[in-house]
Amino acid sequence: MRIIVDAMGSDRAPGVDVEGAVGAARRFGQEIVLVGREEDIRRELARHDTQRLSISVVHASQVIEMAEHPSQAVRSKPDSSMVVGMRLLRDQQADAFVSAGNSGGVLAAALASAGRLGRVKGVHRPAISTVVPTLKGYSLMLDIGANTDCRPEWLVQFALMGSIYARTRGIERPRVALLANGEEETKGNAAVQAAHEMLKHLSLNFVGNVEGKDITRDLADVIVSDGFVGNVAIKALEGVASTILTLLRDEIKARPLASVGALLAKPAFRVVGKKLDYREYGGAPLLGVNGVVIIAHGRSDALAMENAVRIAIEAVNAHLVQTIQQEMADALTVLDSLAPAASTLFGQEPGDQ
Amino acid sequence: MRIIVDAMGSDRAPGVDVEGAVGAARRFGQEIVLVGREEDIRRELARHDTQRLSISVVHASQVIEMAEHPSQAVRSKPDSSMVVGMRLLRDQQADAFVSAGNSGGVLAAALASAGRLGRVKGVHRPAISTVVPTLKGYSLMLDIGANTDCRPEWLVQFALMGSIYARTRGIERPRVALLANGEEETKGNAAVQAAHEMLKHLSLNFVGNVEGKDITRDLADVIVSDGFVGNVAIKALEGVASTILTLLRDEIKARPLASVGALLAKPAFRVVGKKLDYREYGGAPLLGVNGVVIIAHGRSDALAMENAVRIAIEAVNAHLVQTIQQEMADALTVLDSLAPAASTLFGQEPGDQ
Repeated sequence: MRIIVDAMGSDRAPGVDVEGAVGAARRFGQEIVLVGREEDIRRELARHDTQRLSISVVHASQVIEMAEHPSQAVRSKPDSSMVVGMRLLRDQQADAFVSAGNSGGVLAAALASAGRLGRVKGVHRPAISTVVPTLKGYSLMLDIGANTDCRPEWLVQFALMGSIYARTRGIERPRVALLANGEEETKGNAAVQAAHEMLKHLSLNFVGNVEGKDITRDLADVIVSDGFVGNVAIKALEGVASTILTLLRDEIKARPLASVGALLAKPAFRVVGKKLDYREYGGAPLLGVNGVVIIAHGRSDALAMENAVRIAIEAVNAHLVQTIQQEMADALTVLDSLAPAASTLFGQEPGDQ
Repeated sequence: MRIIVDAMGSDRAPGVDVEGAVGAARRFGQEIVLVGREEDIRRELARHDTQRLSISVVHASQVIEMAEHPSQAVRSKPDSSMVVGMRLLRDQQADAFVSAGNSGGVLAAALASAGRLGRVKGVHRPAISTVVPTLKGYSLMLDIGANTDCRPEWLVQFALMGSIYARTRGIERPRVALLANGEEETKGNAAVQAAHEMLKHLSLNFVGNVEGKDITRDLADVIVSDGFVGNVAIKALEGVASTILTLLRDEIKARPLASVGALLAKPAFRVVGKKLDYREYGGAPLLGVNGVVIIAHGRSDALAMENAVRIAIEAVNAHLVQTIQQEMADALTVLDSLAPAASTLFGQEPGDQ
């Protein structure tokens, strides 16, 4: 198996991206292709022992930055690591692509004519997924940013794809939920309510709505929302976790006795920190595109990158894309019979079919 | 001044609601009218020293429960404490109404024909606001549940009303932001992007978009969203805070040394807990209705209820409703000239004008 790693993706690229790729090559024994500025990559590679590892480098002269507008950046930078990496994947030079870069950029690169991996047949919109730590383990959330205004059919497809991915991760009958402003079926905005109705007709383990407070409570394995709400929710989780820890640290520092106490309690904090740490799970797939594309956190360190490569390998082994292709075709028959009723709620979008 | 308190509102009603009302009567020296099942209220009152306090009781035989559908409940329970209390406010028997009950119910009672307090002239939709603790103090968020699908003009009005309320709380030029999936002006769903454009034309201290991670970071005094997103975000904040504390408690309990440490660190935890504690601020107004209506947290205890009454008194003293009436009239002139462009993005809603 051959995995492409975007060497220029993370906030601390190419250092941690290359280090993570080297670690992954050693740990999993698969081929790694690093894409990015060759000179920079070679310099980083020289810092590690890469003997007996299968690591190659493909030069790409441009870099898409975090703050750039995704589709504009992809258009204006055809020789960026993201576009070049995506093209390699499309041309079947590799089995998966991993990037810790601008997630909108990864999506745009997958769909832009330059890299054009394209969508799985029948998929309206690909979705960016992520993993959220819960009281008992992890849940998958999607979409967290690719699609801000969603038609109900898209949400239903997100649910389907999320469920398939969760199954490839070993969950037999993933509990799928819609993120909403209340548990009751009557809650939700118009799109969520329509999606709710449609989801009842599919053979998913649909458990209804979950509220924002339930995201971390292990009530569902897959939590579906549009990319606007999902993005706000996931960032709210990150933000408040960091605020609480900042407040605690400041108050503890101001108190000598509390500082001693915190030292004694440190192992407990460390375990909780590890549970909440995105580095442990590494990344999650861009679902609905014609290839295994794993998006890692921009703040990834080498361990996170290593784990993102592991996630990619596992997705390839589990035939994630082929499974989505098959099951989407089956589901479309059901969806097509339901969609007309729902679409009267929303303006028709030209070129969407 | 006379403040009506819904005695049947909170999760532990009427005990904490009555206790809080008694505390408020003593602390602020104003008249309190308790509305609800008279027998139950009298029994609770008998547990407290109410001598020299000005507390009266108005009987209402019905109770709207937390899980009830708001408008249905209001229709089917015309003698509920919520509807009766709202009617007293409308009939100017009092200056404000405080409830820790079903917030959708409070809104429905304010707008239903039975209680019909009604909207401020020109206000499309009232909004439920709440106070969120931040690193440095508090921010106001609205809407957090009244309106799930919002037109851009509604969001703009929420911004206006939130800014006015923040000013009555002593913030001279409140920073007003839209909650979005990115800081850039181009981020947001269609409604947020259109509202963004309109807000630039108003004389508000509009600071642009804030992300979910910034809600608790004191980047804005007023954070505006539709009621669906706002509800998901606010509950996500509550949920993750409680998850982190649960995880920490479990891990600390499992370790004898850590338990000692936690004991020593307790004062620090207590200060942070107090900062995050909704009981300190009590409640926040339902903005856009023709009267001071304060919604307290369903999990309120007596202290929270007492503070909610304080918030009501302060809003009356600051002429909150009159200020909204005046400034909304001024802003409507500007908004009317902008709305047609924005409304082409959205279907016209019959009867909205």
